[in-house]
Amino acid sequence: MADATARMLKEKPNSPLYDDIGFAKIDNHRKARRGFPEVVFGKGKTTDQVVKISEKIVKHDGILLITHADKKAFLRLKRSCPGIKFDEKARIISYRKDRPVLKKGLVLIITAGTADLPVAMEAKATLEIMGNRAEILCDVGVAGIHRLLGKQDVLDSAEVVIVIAGMEGALASVVSGLVSKAVIAVPTSVGYGASFEGIAPLLTMMNSCSPGVAVVNIDNGFGAAYFASLINR
Amino acid sequence: MADATARMLKEKPNSPLYDDIGFAKIDNHRKARRGFPEVVFGKGKTTDQVVKISEKIVKHDGILLITHADKKAFLRLKRSCPGIKFDEKARIISYRKDRPVLKKGLVLIITAGTADLPVAMEAKATLEIMGNRAEILCDVGVAGIHRLLGKQDVLDSAEVVIVIAGMEGALASVVSGLVSKAVIAVPTSVGYGASFEGIAPLLTMMNSCSPGVAVVNIDNGFGAAYFASLINR
Amino acid sequence: MADATARMLKEKPNSPLYDDIGFAKIDNHRKARRGFPEVVFGKGKTTDQVVKISEKIVKHDGILLITHADKKAFLRLKRSCPGIKFDEKARIISYRKDRPVLKKGLVLIITAGTADLPVAMEAKATLEIMGNRAEILCDVGVAGIHRLLGKQDVLDSAEVVIVIAGMEGALASVVSGLVSKAVIAVPTSVGYGASFEGIAPLLTMMNSCSPGVAVVNIDNGFGAAYFASLINR
Amino acid sequence: MADATARMLKEKPNSPLYDDIGFAKIDNHRKARRGFPEVVFGKGKTTDQVVKISEKIVKHDGILLITHADKKAFLRLKRSCPGIKFDEKARIISYRKDRPVLKKGLVLIITAGTADLPVAMEAKATLEIMGNRAEILCDVGVAGIHRLLGKQDVLDSAEVVIVIAGMEGALASVVSGLVSKAVIAVPTSVGYGASFEGIAPLLTMMNSCSPGVAVVNIDNGFGAAYFASLINR
Amino acid sequence: MADATARMLKEKPNSPLYDDIGFAKIDNHRKARRGFPEVVFGKGKTTDQVVKISEKIVKHDGILLITHADKKAFLRLKRSCPGIKFDEKARIISYRKDRPVLKKGLVLIITAGTADLPVAMEAKATLEIMGNRAEILCDVGVAGIHRLLGKQDVLDSAEVVIVIAGMEGALASVVSGLVSKAVIAVPTSVGYGASFEGIAPLLTMMNSCSPGVAVVNIDNGFGAAYFASLINR
Amino acid sequence: MADATARMLKEKPNSPLYDDIGFAKIDNHRKARRGFPEVVFGKGKTTDQVVKISEKIVKHDGILLITHADKKAFLRLKRSCPGIKFDEKARIISYRKDRPVLKKGLVLIITAGTADLPVAMEAKATLEIMGNRAEILCDVGVAGIHRLLGKQDVLDSAEVVIVIAGMEGALASVVSGLVSKAVIAVPTSVGYGASFEGIAPLLTMMNSCSPGVAVVNIDNGFGAAYFASLINR
Amino acid sequence: MADATARMLKEKPNSPLYDDIGFAKIDNHRKARRGFPEVVFGKGKTTDQVVKISEKIVKHDGILLITHADKKAFLRLKRSCPGIKFDEKARIISYRKDRPVLKKGLVLIITAGTADLPVAMEAKATLEIMGNRAEILCDVGVAGIHRLLGKQDVLDSAEVVIVIAGMEGALASVVSGLVSKAVIAVPTSVGYGASFEGIAPLLTMMNSCSPGVAVVNIDNGFGAAYFASLINR
Amino acid sequence: MADATARMLKEKPNSPLYDDIGFAKIDNHRKARRGFPEVVFGKGKTTDQVVKISEKIVKHDGILLITHADKKAFLRLKRSCPGIKFDEKARIISYRKDRPVLKKGLVLIITAGTADLPVAMEAKATLEIMGNRAEILCDVGVAGIHRLLGKQDVLDSAEVVIVIAGMEGALASVVSGLVSKAVIAVPTSVGYGASFEGIAPLLTMMNSCSPGVAVVNIDNGFGAAYFASLINR
Repeated sequence: MADATARMLKEKPNSPLYDDIGFAKIDNHRKARRGFPEVVFGKGKTTDQVVKISEKIVKHDGILLITHADKKAFLRLKRSCPGIKFDEKARIISYRKDRPVLKKGLVLIITAGTADLPVAMEAKATLEIMGNRAEILCDVGVAGIHRLLGKQDVLDSAEVVIVIAGMEGALASVVSGLVSKAVIAVPTSVGYGASFEGIAPLLTMMNSCSPGVAVVNIDNGFGAAYFASLINR
Repeated sequence: MADATARMLKEKPNSPLYDDIGFAKIDNHRKARRGFPEVVFGKGKTTDQVVKISEKIVKHDGILLITHADKKAFLRLKRSCPGIKFDEKARIISYRKDRPVLKKGLVLIITAGTADLPVAMEAKATLEIMGNRAEILCDVGVAGIHRLLGKQDVLDSAEVVIVIAGMEGALASVVSGLVSKAVIAVPTSVGYGASFEGIAPLLTMMNSCSPGVAVVNIDNGFGAAYFASLINR
Repeated sequence: MADATARMLKEKPNSPLYDDIGFAKIDNHRKARRGFPEVVFGKGKTTDQVVKISEKIVKHDGILLITHADKKAFLRLKRSCPGIKFDEKARIISYRKDRPVLKKGLVLIITAGTADLPVAMEAKATLEIMGNRAEILCDVGVAGIHRLLGKQDVLDSAEVVIVIAGMEGALASVVSGLVSKAVIAVPTSVGYGASFEGIAPLLTMMNSCSPGVAVVNIDNGFGAAYFASLINR
Repeated sequence: MADATARMLKEKPNSPLYDDIGFAKIDNHRKARRGFPEVVFGKGKTTDQVVKISEKIVKHDGILLITHADKKAFLRLKRSCPGIKFDEKARIISYRKDRPVLKKGLVLIITAGTADLPVAMEAKATLEIMGNRAEILCDVGVAGIHRLLGKQDVLDSAEVVIVIAGMEGALASVVSGLVSKAVIAVPTSVGYGASFEGIAPLLTMMNSCSPGVAVVNIDNGFGAAYFASLINR
Repeated sequence: MADATARMLKEKPNSPLYDDIGFAKIDNHRKARRGFPEVVFGKGKTTDQVVKISEKIVKHDGILLITHADKKAFLRLKRSCPGIKFDEKARIISYRKDRPVLKKGLVLIITAGTADLPVAMEAKATLEIMGNRAEILCDVGVAGIHRLLGKQDVLDSAEVVIVIAGMEGALASVVSGLVSKAVIAVPTSVGYGASFEGIAPLLTMMNSCSPGVAVVNIDNGFGAAYFASLINR
Repeated sequence: MADATARMLKEKPNSPLYDDIGFAKIDNHRKARRGFPEVVFGKGKTTDQVVKISEKIVKHDGILLITHADKKAFLRLKRSCPGIKFDEKARIISYRKDRPVLKKGLVLIITAGTADLPVAMEAKATLEIMGNRAEILCDVGVAGIHRLLGKQDVLDSAEVVIVIAGMEGALASVVSGLVSKAVIAVPTSVGYGASFEGIAPLLTMMNSCSPGVAVVNIDNGFGAAYFASLINR
Repeated sequence: MADATARMLKEKPNSPLYDDIGFAKIDNHRKARRGFPEVVFGKGKTTDQVVKISEKIVKHDGILLITHADKKAFLRLKRSCPGIKFDEKARIISYRKDRPVLKKGLVLIITAGTADLPVAMEAKATLEIMGNRAEILCDVGVAGIHRLLGKQDVLDSAEVVIVIAGMEGALASVVSGLVSKAVIAVPTSVGYGASFEGIAPLLTMMNSCSPGVAVVNIDNGFGAAYFASLINR
Repeated sequence: MADATARMLKEKPNSPLYDDIGFAKIDNHRKARRGFPEVVFGKGKTTDQVVKISEKIVKHDGILLITHADKKAFLRLKRSCPGIKFDEKARIISYRKDRPVLKKGLVLIITAGTADLPVAMEAKATLEIMGNRAEILCDVGVAGIHRLLGKQDVLDSAEVVIVIAGMEGALASVVSGLVSKAVIAVPTSVGYGASFEGIAPLLTMMNSCSPGVAVVNIDNGFGAAYFASLINR
């Protein structure tokens, strides 16, 4: 941390470690320390709070990612930051002043069904703003496993794999059994009844009989992507 | 029920509907009504109770099935009923005076791993005493799915399929996607941590994205077999 | 699977194994492999996605079943497929170009109460499009068990029985004790408080003291019917 | 409470409201206030503590009831109180100096299976020491419901009914539908897997579709009996 | 049951055991068998279904009780049954042609807080239509226990006590410790966070350290009242 | 309690122990007994009930605190009590006739994120009406722990610390490890998926590896503040 | 922390911040920072590890507290540290070279029943080694509430109150309603069935309708005492 | 998969895809497909089964890893495979004929406490047999966070970080906030009461407010290591 701090202070000698704006302390040091600035969690904040925090981050780092975002914040932010983008389904607001240097590896995002797409879109937007090439392989759930088996070449081309599945979430184990790469599993709240808003696939993925799987929170496409970006070469 | 009762009374005109021996009421009518006599649940009964109930059933119906059984009861019953069998791993005591007429259909019992075998053995013993041909396809879990895919002909030869799996229990969905037969899923307590003694595979199986799956209790090989026997042609 | 594929390719030589339309991969092979084409899960998909997937299935297989469907999708689909039907309570959209060959066996759908009817209707619509004769015996819950006992002849006439119950879900065990056929149990979210949206009847049904019961997901009338159709002779 | 206190002090003018023996405060007032002296919960106390508390109660009230009791405490207490009784299965130690005046009403204890008997024995011992006539109707679970239906006259003869059942616990609802008396339901830990040590029957009983059922803790035969005694005329 | 049936047929010789109106089987036999006609559970039924079932019951028995009722059904029923009453807070519709013979005993309904009142009103309406005198002692929760202790005379005047409490539900144990009558405990969903919509008080009440408590479902004022009426002398 | 009663009666000789207004019994004795009058829980009460209870408390004690309050009650109360205040985010209505004597100690309220602010505001309003100096240190969650470490002097200046955190709630343990004061932890429902509306941080805080932490209910800023006020010197 | 570090280094200029002995890093700084040295959690460590860690702490700070301790570790430690004490029931090993300066305030430990005593003993041992006067008021559960009400003077004499209760845990709310001091609640695993090893009283205590209660982990007498010591004046 | 198969068949032209030994199908293809041969899960298998499976794997691949292993299997395997190793605490049996080529990156294993060491040892053994350099940083839990902060250089030297923690599991979030590398979190069953055998830290880790964390099953040191090896450069 000491090193990172030193590095940051060299780049931005007058930058305080964080901006204190009362209801938030924006972590200016995050990018130096972790490689990416603070990501804004939109839920539970007022539009005003989201906007003020975001403007600080844009100004300091030139990069912005808001998850669980809504349209109101987007419309407000668009005024001061015209290049900003909003994916309503994925609930993602994103902005990047410069174009990131693209990493070599491909991150493959696989979904079990069509209804898992918004989570996949959240992952894709996160990956791209963090400089990763990302592709989505959609609707290859185990009910028709030949759809997945026929894509072995796509699986093999990936450096990291994200598997997104609701209902019983079996896809993560199956994919993991077919590849030699790390599989990041995202349980989704797609389903009903005894899927308990994503608990069923979460448990499935935690107990994968096939090693090489690690799990993030329910519907957390962002978290899977962030993790994938850290391990993408 | 009226018809069944009539039928039974015709066969055994002096048989009461049940034998009342104080701590138990043995349902003599069960075989006429349901096609198979009462099955004894060994757990929570004293050896003495198990033995007395069993002797009544053997005498009345010539068939005996005890689940969750132990060796003590077996040794006691062996005295009066020498042909009786005991599978310790499966915790099954069984006896059949006559040989059952074999049903045509094959019931295929599939296990995800080797550790699921005791449950599979309970299912097999139940199926056989009920007159079914049964085969076990062992250790074809999704961590190495080619082991299953290479057995499509075996899958296709079955009339009914029982899938037994612990950990994440993904196998049931996968098998169901490959066959046009009913899949009876048995979650097992094989696993640790967040498998919660079988809750994880139970939820997986309840939420199968592939239709054609119905679920029985955790480790309930007997129940799956009994159900399979009812639908085996 | 190899056989099924061969059969399908013979029938439709130019048919790919699945149609890839980006947000979905429609499993053209499903009918050959499993006897019935892909069923669309309406929840979590946009109307546009539902419509496009459905049109592909209608075109390829001449049969359509959408569960968790809404009126919007129905009105859109009606334009291109006038014979399509929608049961709003059961949330089922269905269509079948030809009339299915009727199977001989009767599937009896039993509900504990009037409030369980929508789930029963989902089951009935599914059974009928799959070529089964289906009847509903409604409101025979155990609070007035003579209503059920007086219907022993109806119970005996069925080849398969589906029991649908919320609250404590005791009906499944009771019915199972009266018949020699398989009982498929559907817990429903009917109830309040400690029924926990269907967990109470789900556990009841999983633990049936009467063997011959297997369970599907909460409110899953479709799944019970699909399973019943597989075992209906 | 004031009245009860006055009454007690009249009977035993020198009696303090409770005996303080350091590790326990024995509630001498309990019998005056509630009609029955303090009942000792044996679990978690040392043998020494159980013995000392019990001796105080015997001396003050001439009645003793210990639940969750073990043999050690019994053997120790037998020395000073020779008439004491111990039912090992029911884990009940009991003693009564005088014979209670018998209440008129019959309390009927019904068990679903043989394995529920220890809980029934706990209930019976409690009922008898509190002056009730009690009978056990054993093993009439819903898997063979004719065993119960044939006992309508016994059901009708009872003033209060206790239903004891594990596994899915369906019996409580069924019995309640057949009688015009209150049904006290006791879930038991009999079962395995998804019965979750009694949670399944507990939920079943809480959600009874038939009104007239109230529930006590898992395996709590004592509590059901105590409650039954309060309402037995 | 045989006796009850005989009695009913004597009174209403042409009455069938139940009215089958397709979506419901109205249990005409309920009053003879259990002392009170079928109670309608309003939730999950259409207004039309509620109205048709209710009209049958009114016609056959002259008494009507609907729980979980809404205003629509009330306005419809008022046309054909002008004397009908509706308590919106308690969600109870009730009607009684004749005045019931009042039972002697008083049923005391105690609430921990003001927010528990709707459940208490449901209990009171149920008790009154079943011929019981009922009183509510409101807002005597343990945070100010002198409010309860000062009412010992009211407690002592009751034949049966119903305790209604949300949050931690401690009141049931405390009241039980002060009376020699049965305490029926009703957990309510009043509270937030870790009260889990009533699970917290439900568990509290199930585990009462003071014997003489039995529990009904969360918010089930009706069930507590029905049970109380069965035991009220 | 006797002492407290004596004290109160001396101050207000004609004051009854509580005001009985039917739907509520206002505990006039609370302030004497506990140092602060009854606090009104606004949820589940009608506006009318809230207003009438509140007016009694204002009249008797000159202090009012309503939690889970809404605007309607505020507008009604403002008429009779113009000095009353409402914080909509914190859902707190408060009023105090006199100015409280300020306690010496500072209560420091720390939040992990900006979205936890409403709970912090509830705590602050409660602390101030009870005579405490309170400060909020906002948004110092462990994702950027230097924001917290840089505030060691602020931590050291506090007499009591309240830590408010959702998601994983790790902040409570970390703060506790840095101070020699008591830490009251408040889990919040901020988060999604497997945070289960606050269960995740609740468990985190209950299991703190650092001693000196005690926990209140989810989102219960009021409860933490009330407790803090009791221990603030 | 900076100040604390400075203070420590002044006292023990050559003391490193922690002792690294491979399998543990003993926090020498803990006492300076938090007022009490590191407490050893005995469970899950080998006897050897416990002994080596403990000897370091004794040497550095002259005070030792081991929770969840066993006899083996005690016998080993006794050799090098003859004054060490072991309370087997409370599973506490403790040692203090000097006598602590006694704080003025009394910490009152209240238990609902006799079976809660081991947890109370753990609390008492912790309090005493931390320099507090502590008293236990045992067995005053709400089943006989006059035992508690008669001790109002004892309650009033305490500076802090710890309430320890299993089963339904109602005592914490009741005590809190009687005092103007902070109540620290400790749920215990005393009970059976639906007490779920302490979850029932934990939820009860979290939802106390009486403010002024904060909760620690199940059976965590140590944690309650540590917290109490921090707030004892 | 096709490529992998081709590769494997080239290397071992006569090798079948799996060895079928009845109770197991050993996946010979695993190493070609995934880079490491099948790992044996020792729990639930008989010693005989473990030994036979292991001997096949050793023969085919020259590498062996058994998790959840016991001494019996080790002693049996030692006869045929003298170089085999057993770590009893970690329950790991391992063997490697050749020395693996060491990867460059360091995998840092961090534990919160000493009691987490066995899980860390399981991870270390797994990492080393898979060719990784691994170091353990033990006992740096958040109760004394300076122990961690002082090791920033060690954190920065790692390519991948594994964090192992029980109790509240807060360490994973804290570490993640300090590094720019992926953090694999392992909840452990260390703790008691409301840690629920590891559920508490599992939820903590799933809900990390700091991105860059993914989670494996409770106590699953092996799984974390396997995953870490896949992403170690």
